Amino acid sequence: MTKNKQFTASAQQSLADIIYHRRDIRGNNFLNSPLPQAVLDKILHAAALAPSVGLSQPWEFVIVRDKETKQRVADNHQHENERAEKEFKDNQKHLYRQLKLEGIKEAPINIAVFYKPSTQPILGQNSMPEMGEYSVVCAIQNMWLTARSLNVGLGWVSILNPEKVKSILNAPHENKLIAYLCIGYVKEFLELPELEILSWHKRTPLKIIDETY
Amino acid sequence: MTKNKQFTASAQQSLADIIYHRRDIRGNNFLNSPLPQAVLDKILHAAALAPSVGLSQPWEFVIVRDKETKQRVADNHQHENERAEKEFKDNQKHLYRQLKLEGIKEAPINIAVFYKPSTQPILGQNSMPEMGEYSVVCAIQNMWLTARSLNVGLGWVSILNPEKVKSILNAPHENKLIAYLCIGYVKEFLELPELEILSWHKRTPLKIIDETY
Repeated sequence: MTKNKQFTASAQQSLADIIYHRRDIRGNNFLNSPLPQAVLDKILHAAALAPSVGLSQPWEFVIVRDKETKQRVADNHQHENERAEKEFKDNQKHLYRQLKLEGIKEAPINIAVFYKPSTQPILGQNSMPEMGEYSVVCAIQNMWLTARSLNVGLGWVSILNPEKVKSILNAPHENKLIAYLCIGYVKEFLELPELEILSWHKRTPLKIIDETY
Repeated sequence: MTKNKQFTASAQQSLADIIYHRRDIRGNNFLNSPLPQAVLDKILHAAALAPSVGLSQPWEFVIVRDKETKQRVADNHQHENERAEKEFKDNQKHLYRQLKLEGIKEAPINIAVFYKPSTQPILGQNSMPEMGEYSVVCAIQNMWLTARSLNVGLGWVSILNPEKVKSILNAPHENKLIAYLCIGYVKEFLELPELEILSWHKRTPLKIIDETY
């Protein structure tokens, strides 16, 4: 390792391509082929190298392969999804009902990602206490991009009751569920996000403000 | 673009190297050379391609170059930092006082990154309302890695009062400050995180739990 590594145009383009082709993968797209441990290890290693506030590394990962555990999480998703559906009206509700929004049972690997708060003061977390959770999200984005580079799909399931998932996994009281990830090989990576293809939402130009609002 | 792009070992290694060599950059390391607009545009473009809950894209970016604005933000940092210092004891307090923890005035570009909550229900955000904020953090991590690939430094300043920063930037009441970023060319990318070099914290092995706690 050089002290001061400079990246080339080729490495820059690789990252840009990985970012462009990353997708959220759901159960209509996972293959049931197993994920080799060496591949999973690379994805987890990328999490370990994420930035964290005060180098606190406040993350914990629960690897779920057990069918019964997955079923219990999937049952909670179904309950929360029926509740969420009621938020939408008319055409949106109709489309919402047709969407497959998770791959809990289809993906060979699920990973519950937790934030473990520190009992000690953390450098950088005094004025913005959410920084611990945000560090965990940075780790997840590292995992997501690394999975995509390895041609492995990852889906983030957020239609879950975090307290119910904690209970299913027997997680410590103080832990906070940040994400429930589904990981595995895929049939295809869609050319665009599925919600864009289905016209649920359009891509909008970035809102960039010059100096002050 | 192929529909189903497969990445090679070379692209995988490029991403792994970028993740490994990413650093949090502070004022002792920024150069005052300007950042070309084309480089800034690439960093912002990476944010636009981040995952977001329900494709809600709930992010807004304020680009700060103005010296007076930077000074006001830096003043708030100093106030918050004096408050934070009191949290640490003995040797930690002594080391804390010597640390340079931000590069607000030294970096040519500051970017305040906001979460803009939607007035409409968002797919995937019903059970976990924090998903909007977490989407913004994914965008920031895309920016951080892209900056590093372009051999540009980025530092995330969290020792700030978010409401004071909102006031300085005249941000709408409903916006939430997620991050205040400092961006520019650097003297060097340290071989390891500065807090690791200074033994503030050690790198710890990932905590991985098999199936349930």
